Amino acid sequence: MSKTSALRTNAGADLLSQMTALGQSARTAAQALSVAAPEQKNRALEAMAKELRAARHTILEANAIDVTEAQKKGISAAFLDRLVLNEERIESMASGIEAIIALNDPVGQTITEWERPNGLRISRVRVPLGVIGIIYESRPNVTADAGALCLKSGNAVILRGGSESYNSSQAIHTCLVEGLKDAGLPPDCIQIVPTTDREAVGILLRDMVDFVDVIIPRGGKSLIERVQTEARVPVLAHLEGLCHVYIDKDADLDMAEAITVNSKMRRTGICGAAETLLVNEAVAADYLPKIASGLLEAGCELRGDTGSVSIDARIAPANDGDWTTEYLDAIISIRIVESVDAAIAHISTYGSHHTDTIVTDNPETAEHFLQSVDSAIVLHNASTQFADGGEFGMGAEIGISTGKLHSPGPVGAEQLTTFKYVVRGTGQTRP
Amino acid sequence: MSKTSALRTNAGADLLSQMTALGQSARTAAQALSVAAPEQKNRALEAMAKELRAARHTILEANAIDVTEAQKKGISAAFLDRLVLNEERIESMASGIEAIIALNDPVGQTITEWERPNGLRISRVRVPLGVIGIIYESRPNVTADAGALCLKSGNAVILRGGSESYNSSQAIHTCLVEGLKDAGLPPDCIQIVPTTDREAVGILLRDMVDFVDVIIPRGGKSLIERVQTEARVPVLAHLEGLCHVYIDKDADLDMAEAITVNSKMRRTGICGAAETLLVNEAVAADYLPKIASGLLEAGCELRGDTGSVSIDARIAPANDGDWTTEYLDAIISIRIVESVDAAIAHISTYGSHHTDTIVTDNPETAEHFLQSVDSAIVLHNASTQFADGGEFGMGAEIGISTGKLHSPGPVGAEQLTTFKYVVRGTGQTRP
Repeated sequence: MSKTSALRTNAGADLLSQMTALGQSARTAAQALSVAAPEQKNRALEAMAKELRAARHTILEANAIDVTEAQKKGISAAFLDRLVLNEERIESMASGIEAIIALNDPVGQTITEWERPNGLRISRVRVPLGVIGIIYESRPNVTADAGALCLKSGNAVILRGGSESYNSSQAIHTCLVEGLKDAGLPPDCIQIVPTTDREAVGILLRDMVDFVDVIIPRGGKSLIERVQTEARVPVLAHLEGLCHVYIDKDADLDMAEAITVNSKMRRTGICGAAETLLVNEAVAADYLPKIASGLLEAGCELRGDTGSVSIDARIAPANDGDWTTEYLDAIISIRIVESVDAAIAHISTYGSHHTDTIVTDNPETAEHFLQSVDSAIVLHNASTQFADGGEFGMGAEIGISTGKLHSPGPVGAEQLTTFKYVVRGTGQTRP
Repeated sequence: MSKTSALRTNAGADLLSQMTALGQSARTAAQALSVAAPEQKNRALEAMAKELRAARHTILEANAIDVTEAQKKGISAAFLDRLVLNEERIESMASGIEAIIALNDPVGQTITEWERPNGLRISRVRVPLGVIGIIYESRPNVTADAGALCLKSGNAVILRGGSESYNSSQAIHTCLVEGLKDAGLPPDCIQIVPTTDREAVGILLRDMVDFVDVIIPRGGKSLIERVQTEARVPVLAHLEGLCHVYIDKDADLDMAEAITVNSKMRRTGICGAAETLLVNEAVAADYLPKIASGLLEAGCELRGDTGSVSIDARIAPANDGDWTTEYLDAIISIRIVESVDAAIAHISTYGSHHTDTIVTDNPETAEHFLQSVDSAIVLHNASTQFADGGEFGMGAEIGISTGKLHSPGPVGAEQLTTFKYVVRGTGQTRP
């Protein structure tokens, strides 16, 4: 073995043992946290919000170091916007944590209960997942948001933020730990990986099956694909939001325009933003020009199939790649479809099982669409931008899951729990 | 490239395209099945039961071939017992399918619904998972049980049974397909991998992410470990059932004996069978001899820590490996613990998050145990052998999950579904 590779191996072993120690501490903290009273968790959240406000200058100094380093690397404007903090953004983190205090505590809730003929009383009781690993990009606010939501739901968490936000995230993490200590909870309830070594992510994904119950990636496609490919523990993730608006032949034109423009243009960078507009051919010639005008006025670029281009020359020709592109930008693809079933088939072929809406005044067509489209969220006569935990009344969310298992849709405090069966008997044995 | 490896590569490519075709057919069938009426699914189940009875001679002939081949390989008696079919076992498969007809159809059920201040009506509606891959050992009856339960829950299924049961499973599968055709459902709702090539399992686990939503392994530890290591799709599995009985200092002695003997000895080969007995030191000297006698009379071998050996000489010394061994046999490990918390700590260290019970007349101690033990099923004053979908009133089950995500505990028809959010609006756009 060469000297270099020996060194690398030793460094790898050190990192592995460091990460294992992190995992063991998280497991121990999770056990204590799983039985903590709601009031104690809320006291910690209150203290965290207070600490964040008090430490804002320290956090901004740490963030300034991150920003300077990142700018040297020539990062994009969008990247910089996500990375940079200011007093307002710190206040928003603090008030975000306070909003979590107000949520119902899901832990210990009885979901359902029943009695068996032999007298056994069975109940399904909500319990924390255990230890959650959260891997995110260089958005320092996720440190506070995710840490607080995991605490509320009784889970210990291991955070791993993007390396460009390392100093900011560490400074925010220090405030969270102070909050935990203030309330007498184990500081290891919220840990952050203390290195920017990329291999730490690999270890978290592959080597910590005994210490991590679920991994939640938050970020772009490449991060989430890496996590889904490498992870040996269950992953709760959405890969992308390729959302559709379908304008049925029985749609109201004004509503169709309003919902299309809002679904696409209210905010183009969120996963619930629409990427494709499907229009029933029976109304396409009538409706498409007005809807196109609405989109153009809002600053949207239009790319359509040959049918839509022939109806409205302001639409540029789309290519096959457009149907599978999550633009996350002011661009929409447009296709004429012959029926609601053709719309359903298009969504089945090109969609991402995230969020899709139908605009129609025909209740039967609506129900057929709602039943047939295989997405986490299906809407009738409403904007796809409602795909959001807050809009669902669930409070803060950690993301929107498009996986089939566990809990599709917005993942809030309740969705970060699981359940166990509690069975109360009087000495029953099984015949 | 040598001629042999070229051939192997071609064969591999053929198998991959064959499996991909299977996956695509399953996806198409799943779409049709997801909106099938409960009555149509039940008609198919009725026809399947009828076909199984009518084809019993054909099935027995196929089974005889499997048994002869397996005996040549020198299989164990236990293996043979699982493989062999007779008229009674075929009748039991048929009546098992009839019992599934009687279950509630979970698909389309509204789990919960609420209205938002903006008038959006949100409901969480149960939907099938989609396509389920089931990998099992050479137990031909699983072909019928799993196929029927997946159909009831609206899921298409790809079955892959152990190669020693190939002919039996194919014959049973033929009956299931006849039942599907009889009811006008796509025959591809239930498919079986048409080869004994072990690489087919690898393809199912790694290369069919687009066509398989969840894999359920049924079988021994090595099968389940392989699935958990290789799978690139979510897995619903229990690794093992290392279940505990804890006899508290406030336990009733007669109840303690009855529950211990039943938990261990009613059936030793099921995952809910107890493997370790923990006895509070305050009552160990009084209680252990009587409980040990009960176990010995039932034919159980006793292995204990030094404390228990010194109380009762009929107990052989245990070694450290005993605390982590799922005997699935008439053997129990026994340990004296100083408190309920020591029992909880032992279960946390050595348990498998499956099923654990406390025997005590003290309600506070019971609640502490029920809250603190992190298992899918926790019981008070009842036998661990109640860990069973049928005993829970859920009807047939496909197994008991010890995973945290989705649905821990017995996995019946309802647990083979997920949900989606259906949102009904009147033109709402998001501000």
